[in-house]
Amino acid sequence: MTPVVKRALGRLVRELGAGEVRTDRATLEAHAGDKWFASHVPDAVVYPSTRESLVRVLRWATRHGVPVTPRGAGHGYVGGCVPVRGGLVVSLDHWNRIVEISEADFVAVVEPGVRTQALQEAVEARGLYYPPDPASRADCSIGGNIATNAGGPRCLKYGTTRDYVLGLEVVLGDGTELRLGSRTHKNKTGFELARLFVGSEGLLGLVTEATLKLIPRPPWKACVAAGLGSMRQAARVIREIFAAGYLPCALEVADRFTLQAARKRTGDSRLAGCGAVIILELDGHERSVRGELRGVEGILGRARPRFVQRALGPAATERLWQLRREFSYALRDTGLTKMNEDVVVPRGRLEELFELGARIQERHGFPVACFGHAGDGNIHVNIMVDETEKDFGTRRDRALDELFEGVLGMGGVITGEHGIGLAKKPWWSSAVPEAVRQVHRRLKAALDPKDVLNPGKFV
Amino acid sequence: MTPVVKRALGRLVRELGAGEVRTDRATLEAHAGDKWFASHVPDAVVYPSTRESLVRVLRWATRHGVPVTPRGAGHGYVGGCVPVRGGLVVSLDHWNRIVEISEADFVAVVEPGVRTQALQEAVEARGLYYPPDPASRADCSIGGNIATNAGGPRCLKYGTTRDYVLGLEVVLGDGTELRLGSRTHKNKTGFELARLFVGSEGLLGLVTEATLKLIPRPPWKACVAAGLGSMRQAARVIREIFAAGYLPCALEVADRFTLQAARKRTGDSRLAGCGAVIILELDGHERSVRGELRGVEGILGRARPRFVQRALGPAATERLWQLRREFSYALRDTGLTKMNEDVVVPRGRLEELFELGARIQERHGFPVACFGHAGDGNIHVNIMVDETEKDFGTRRDRALDELFEGVLGMGGVITGEHGIGLAKKPWWSSAVPEAVRQVHRRLKAALDPKDVLNPGKFV
Repeated sequence: MTPVVKRALGRLVRELGAGEVRTDRATLEAHAGDKWFASHVPDAVVYPSTRESLVRVLRWATRHGVPVTPRGAGHGYVGGCVPVRGGLVVSLDHWNRIVEISEADFVAVVEPGVRTQALQEAVEARGLYYPPDPASRADCSIGGNIATNAGGPRCLKYGTTRDYVLGLEVVLGDGTELRLGSRTHKNKTGFELARLFVGSEGLLGLVTEATLKLIPRPPWKACVAAGLGSMRQAARVIREIFAAGYLPCALEVADRFTLQAARKRTGDSRLAGCGAVIILELDGHERSVRGELRGVEGILGRARPRFVQRALGPAATERLWQLRREFSYALRDTGLTKMNEDVVVPRGRLEELFELGARIQERHGFPVACFGHAGDGNIHVNIMVDETEKDFGTRRDRALDELFEGVLGMGGVITGEHGIGLAKKPWWSSAVPEAVRQVHRRLKAALDPKDVLNPGKFV
Repeated sequence: MTPVVKRALGRLVRELGAGEVRTDRATLEAHAGDKWFASHVPDAVVYPSTRESLVRVLRWATRHGVPVTPRGAGHGYVGGCVPVRGGLVVSLDHWNRIVEISEADFVAVVEPGVRTQALQEAVEARGLYYPPDPASRADCSIGGNIATNAGGPRCLKYGTTRDYVLGLEVVLGDGTELRLGSRTHKNKTGFELARLFVGSEGLLGLVTEATLKLIPRPPWKACVAAGLGSMRQAARVIREIFAAGYLPCALEVADRFTLQAARKRTGDSRLAGCGAVIILELDGHERSVRGELRGVEGILGRARPRFVQRALGPAATERLWQLRREFSYALRDTGLTKMNEDVVVPRGRLEELFELGARIQERHGFPVACFGHAGDGNIHVNIMVDETEKDFGTRRDRALDELFEGVLGMGGVITGEHGIGLAKKPWWSSAVPEAVRQVHRRLKAALDPKDVLNPGKFV
């Protein structure tokens, strides 16, 4: 910051309410990064107490050309909220009120700082349902979910955050306030602006309130896990499940490396000798779910599974999902650094993706652990890096190059859930043709002509 | 067109292949309007034979400042494809090839002229499913569905066209070719550009190919229709169905006026004395659907229906839907002109919307027939105008003013499916705040700076 800007910041601090702007070292450092490894300390952190404060801050930043990096709960995986050019971090994390839950209209109106799980529990208590379920749902916020179009296992059946955003209140970089969309479940008035902001990673505006679509709460659920001999067999079973007309709410898979780590962690000897584990959830009315579960188990049974474990009812299902969560912890237990890449391939190319993982493991000498949302073709490919090894950085980057090149070659994409942020920025230009990147720049210039919001990211 | 442009058009005609540009009176008149009443004859109609031709035409139009109005199958309801400023109509209606249906990847790749029903039949024959089902699905095209984000009864459970667009090939007004999105079911690479074009009513670009998401075909379906005493009772039943955790694939309702007309047309005496009819469809595995149907029928039974008719299996369901289709024909039989307004209200305000319809009927002396997608709050309010009456135009406009003002006052929107086009343009500025209209203009300027595409519409 230039001395002139520094003085202007002093004036802004005096203008705003007490505690709205902080520049102490601890606060700055706490707002320098997210769950990825990059970080950069901002010049100030702003906690606007009101919409008016927020607008004032953005106008000030636009006038002085000071970068503004919006921040949610800080649980992103790609460095999307790292203030790489300094300036202000604007946090709306304390805007965490559930404004309204309407059983009549099937909507929730929430501030951006509301935790995803808190919203889910509140609406489920009223017989309603908000499906998006990112793994970090206890810690992440709706604002961050909107910024990244967060998904999760259930988006196989229910779609991602985008599909639940009906209306948004947004403030643009220059302080312009917008009310986009509506409270209705359908709307064809003009362009799909609300949904343009979904997934825009803080580059186009700050969401100050969201009106979210809710659906009736499925009355019951069940889950089944099956250990299979190989990933090829798992892929075949998945094809058969779809071909029989089942659309489970979640359909997850884990590979041998992940299972070995999970076995070590949990002592669960059933995982030994499994080449793949499938976990599948069904929801709906109890009788329907029980009947469909039998159908799915029939398909699993024909694949001669090493084991099958079923869970009937919501509580048992939740316990079975614990197995899925252990996968992440188990990989952490290895002591290696997990490069979690949320690539997606066309659904039919799942086996090829696993083969690519095996090839990378062999050629670059890193263990590669794959698990994730098989039903969507969205697999978390974890390249397990030993950071004590020589040249690990160069070798890791070469392995990532090979992964992304391979995925793009299959007609896949380099990110399905986490976003581009800083982590995927090096591959942005190979993932997206120049003409399309040009359109990104045109839209960014149209909505944020001074490039105030989250500069230094992918656009 | 100025003489200079006319000469340039002559050169373009000579440059392009035979039959690609037509200026005969019959062709021009056939491309002057859609299903709404407005029309304007273009100066020429272009049928590009290739993408290269299309790009050449758009470059030519940009250079000479000649308006280009993209046209689908011409089945829109709001005059969206009327070339109000003359110039060229560009029709891709003959681009009607289903390029690919992939059972492995659960995608279809189609040209924009493919008829929606043709696509549905082709994918269903392969065990797959493309849910969006606008009433005109036999005649309308995927390109037009994308331009308007078409819905239909099933979008209650399955969402609208937007939710099935994974990737688009688009050509901008200046001839820039874009490949947006991907073939994967999830993608978080950059902004949601493909979906910004969905619903953009031909103002931002021309879609030349779409990659659509498919889901497993539900193996079975059933349907139930019930005649109820009043619309209030229908609204209560709908609330109870949702509260019991049912999310039918369709949930339609029709009011007394509609039913009387339908009774006259079909001779179906069961409709006499009904204040409302609900039609509800369930799909899934047969045992599940049968069980859920019993549950729903239990709820219907408690409302003491005048009649209940059930249809088991796809063929019987299709026959029962014929009743729903009769509603439209029956209203046409009245000899009155049907102003079909696809308003949407928050789901809990359905009864108020019907009351508003009744008030408009009383105050303006037009019969008002309401039927439609009750589950979405998206009701087709049909103001039935006798065009032989004096002052019918002024009175109609006053009635529409009252309808839209009332709907907006309930937190509703003026269009849920049909779009703004010309028909809703007079209400555009009361439906959308100036700041948001300004953003529309900014985006339009960013993507079509010369205002070549579909000028004279809502932006």
